[in-house]
Amino acid sequence: MPMKIYLAGPDVFLPDAIAIGRRKADICARHGLTGLYPLDNTVDLSAPDASLAIFKANEAMIDAADAIIANLTPFRGAGADPGTVYELGYAAGRGKLCLGYSNDPAVYAERVRQFTQVTAHDGRLVDKCGLTVEDFGLSDNLMMIHALDCYGCALVTPRERPADIWHDFTAFETCVQLAAERLLAGRA
Amino acid sequence: MPMKIYLAGPDVFLPDAIAIGRRKADICARHGLTGLYPLDNTVDLSAPDASLAIFKANEAMIDAADAIIANLTPFRGAGADPGTVYELGYAAGRGKLCLGYSNDPAVYAERVRQFTQVTAHDGRLVDKCGLTVEDFGLSDNLMMIHALDCYGCALVTPRERPADIWHDFTAFETCVQLAAERLLAGRA
Repeated sequence: MPMKIYLAGPDVFLPDAIAIGRRKADICARHGLTGLYPLDNTVDLSAPDASLAIFKANEAMIDAADAIIANLTPFRGAGADPGTVYELGYAAGRGKLCLGYSNDPAVYAERVRQFTQVTAHDGRLVDKCGLTVEDFGLSDNLMMIHALDCYGCALVTPRERPADIWHDFTAFETCVQLAAERLLAGRA
Repeated sequence: MPMKIYLAGPDVFLPDAIAIGRRKADICARHGLTGLYPLDNTVDLSAPDASLAIFKANEAMIDAADAIIANLTPFRGAGADPGTVYELGYAAGRGKLCLGYSNDPAVYAERVRQFTQVTAHDGRLVDKCGLTVEDFGLSDNLMMIHALDCYGCALVTPRERPADIWHDFTAFETCVQLAAERLLAGRA
């Protein structure tokens, strides 16, 4: 049976979310893997407990998967989508192989400057609310970046930001390839 | 030996991060619990692998804890701090008791309106990039909110947003009290 990969990401919030899921699953299939996409779950969105049903279905998919590929492309701000990040943390806690990519190659501290004023103060960078801006030269918060280093492969980013950050699947496919190599090596 | 609680949150990015950690640990102690705060770890910030050392130290603290209390107060945007959310997911995956609070009682969809234009389109809310805005009446992304429901207690929020969202510990103390009740019941 092919190994399974949970496809986490804010892709589900795009207008063509279902088509993106099919595209990602096709790429997985080309590498001998089965992609599990949150929108494959059938949930009655009009039910009063719809959001809980989505939570449980997503969690069951992660539990059933051998690995996760998290789309950590910045979402509605300077950092990754918290829903995706929760799933990455949960997968790491459950001992899954963890991969991730971001289609924005900028480092976090640079990116924060697009959203708020950042100044140097007492040897640290601070935003206009006085909160420290993480400045380790990483793409996002160190917890996600090093989770990938420790439980899978380093974050995959393109050399240059693609024109369409939500529909360029190059970095995603690199993750699929890395996952296939790791999972098949583990099986051999 | 007292039960241990990992104190996750963007508190570590505040100028008085150490004092906040002491305050939170004192509140835990008053309820018979030991608070573990990321900045209690000694890390040489000038070392080239400082960020990896922080990751490993935080993870070891979560592993050693019986529960997590995550500060999910919105951070640098509409949602919670992704580093904190990663830790909540990891703790859930490791079977820890999960609690969380947010000092902003607004629901997510309302809050997004402060950062970007939100319009109704085909029965869903979308932001100005065309991305769906989650609209289940929850405080943040459903993954975090229902993780708390399923693995601990419902998100704790104040009735009204306190004047100083980073230094009001009322909701935090409610979490500590709930954690103490659950952990002591589990032990009995």
